[in-house]
Amino acid sequence: MKLGRIRAVDVDGPTARLVAIEPEQDRVIDLRLACQHALERRGATRAGGRRIAEAWFPGSMRAAISAGEGFLEQAADVADSAGDDASQPMSDVTDWLSPIDPMVLRDCLVFEQHLITQFGRANIEVPGQYYRAPVYYKANPTTLYGHDTEIPWPYETSYLDYELEVGFVLGTSGRDLTPEEAERHLFGVTVFNDFSARDVQSREMAGRLGPAKGKDFATALGPWITTVDEVDIADLDMVARVNGEEWSRGSSGDMMWHAAEIIAYVSQFEPTDPGEVIGSGTVGTGSGSDLGRRLSPGDVVELEIGGIGVLRNRVGEPRPNRWWPEPKSRPDRGVDADGA
Amino acid sequence: MKLGRIRAVDVDGPTARLVAIEPEQDRVIDLRLACQHALERRGATRAGGRRIAEAWFPGSMRAAISAGEGFLEQAADVADSAGDDASQPMSDVTDWLSPIDPMVLRDCLVFEQHLITQFGRANIEVPGQYYRAPVYYKANPTTLYGHDTEIPWPYETSYLDYELEVGFVLGTSGRDLTPEEAERHLFGVTVFNDFSARDVQSREMAGRLGPAKGKDFATALGPWITTVDEVDIADLDMVARVNGEEWSRGSSGDMMWHAAEIIAYVSQFEPTDPGEVIGSGTVGTGSGSDLGRRLSPGDVVELEIGGIGVLRNRVGEPRPNRWWPEPKSRPDRGVDADGA
Repeated sequence: MKLGRIRAVDVDGPTARLVAIEPEQDRVIDLRLACQHALERRGATRAGGRRIAEAWFPGSMRAAISAGEGFLEQAADVADSAGDDASQPMSDVTDWLSPIDPMVLRDCLVFEQHLITQFGRANIEVPGQYYRAPVYYKANPTTLYGHDTEIPWPYETSYLDYELEVGFVLGTSGRDLTPEEAERHLFGVTVFNDFSARDVQSREMAGRLGPAKGKDFATALGPWITTVDEVDIADLDMVARVNGEEWSRGSSGDMMWHAAEIIAYVSQFEPTDPGEVIGSGTVGTGSGSDLGRRLSPGDVVELEIGGIGVLRNRVGEPRPNRWWPEPKSRPDRGVDADGA
Repeated sequence: MKLGRIRAVDVDGPTARLVAIEPEQDRVIDLRLACQHALERRGATRAGGRRIAEAWFPGSMRAAISAGEGFLEQAADVADSAGDDASQPMSDVTDWLSPIDPMVLRDCLVFEQHLITQFGRANIEVPGQYYRAPVYYKANPTTLYGHDTEIPWPYETSYLDYELEVGFVLGTSGRDLTPEEAERHLFGVTVFNDFSARDVQSREMAGRLGPAKGKDFATALGPWITTVDEVDIADLDMVARVNGEEWSRGSSGDMMWHAAEIIAYVSQFEPTDPGEVIGSGTVGTGSGSDLGRRLSPGDVVELEIGGIGVLRNRVGEPRPNRWWPEPKSRPDRGVDADGA
């Protein structure tokens, strides 16, 4: 199945709705509404049907996945029986949301070619740690953007970039898993664009605590989640286009660490939960930084992954800066009043 | 006010309850129950009173704070009117939870003495970035431990450590704030113990994406949140004791970047939300690593901050390892089959 979220407006204002997507039929099904209709056909009152439909299909995909195996069964049944009064053509959908609202968002770096390019540029050997474990950082789950939304340009950067990645969505709770066990915890995959402000990122990473302001302003996910039964996660074609021109191409087959190993590693002495998302890291040539190119305001970035679809985002225009820290003047520490 | 959370058991099993704490009166007030009683005294039915009481005082402190200024007013009114049927002696409370359940947990490093000690040990100058901005990493909001709970020993470490920090709890949503604005976004402070597995952390930080497995297994918060009106956040005495022996002592007055500057920095081109927590980073001598000492299984760590209280945690016994990644053998990258 392909499962996503769109924004709908009801009497209380904007609200998130879970949808099943059938791209071949050009059809997007509102699962809550379709479920309510199915219950009403079996004698439920309007209020009774709505109560059950809201419980199975809340606005949060994380909450929906947390209902366990029953969720996918319900979604498939409901999508099969949905009439035209609970569906619309894909082209009518203008407000795609991130298909998932994870509590924790992690992002790895498991493509060797990207590592070699990035560290090579700084004349540094790839740290051995990348061969010892699937190294990751934690991204910001509160700044997720869906398909066809505009990414605000963070005013501190003159070097905005995209990253072409697969996002792995977890389906069940785990802890201290082996890779064999972890494989069964994978719910689906989505396209993951780890937008990055390279200049901000490289300054802050000198502090050795990893990326934060250089990454946390935006991650795009979507257009939807394809459940794991529909794809071969070890053989996904990955392409990035900017303003229609192909910039990047690669395959998930080049991952040094596989999804099951990554999930198992993440779960060691800490829990993993339904709806969490783990990015694969950037495929070989999968960012402007790998190619010596950078995005400009107004550029349209399309990331396409076989078996999933195309995640398209425009980057916005820079806006003026309201405030940025004044450096603490410490000439003995190599910092003057200009922060140079 | 002092506001926290405890675990209670009702007919459905364990549940989180919001409490107000009056340490001088040795009194812990169940806010939901006290609110329900107050409503019943004014004619509410049991069900009607419970509905309103649950809305103001849910199990999530983040959700409670999200109700805005009304939350603190309600909590103060309800605590004032609470009878003995909605309170208990502090000594009867055995199950303290983390007082707050943030969506995002950040942790800075703004005490210069800690920076000088840590980088000095590696014979490295403190990176200038620490003087240009309040550098932080994002911690794991799903592994929070409350007062008097046991911290599981992560099996991969032989060097477990504590970190003595102030935790700043945010009260309102913001974005692109100036420090003057940010100051009004501070809800309260709590004691923050950023437990760390130093050997795991130092291996993974060679990957340059910051700490993850070395930190994410546990953060202790508590024993409660003291609202910002009750303390001078620029003058908090901070002490750490291990098995009753004082190891660390410092003051929040030594912070290079103040809470308002930190909150403003975090809010630049990304939102901050009610209930988020930002750690100050470790005070000058505030970890075993600053002192050349390490924790042992069974040790009891007490962190005390003036105006808040004592956060006490015992560290558990190591358990056997179920799985850990096998290094990818790449002799040309300095990694052999043993990962050496």
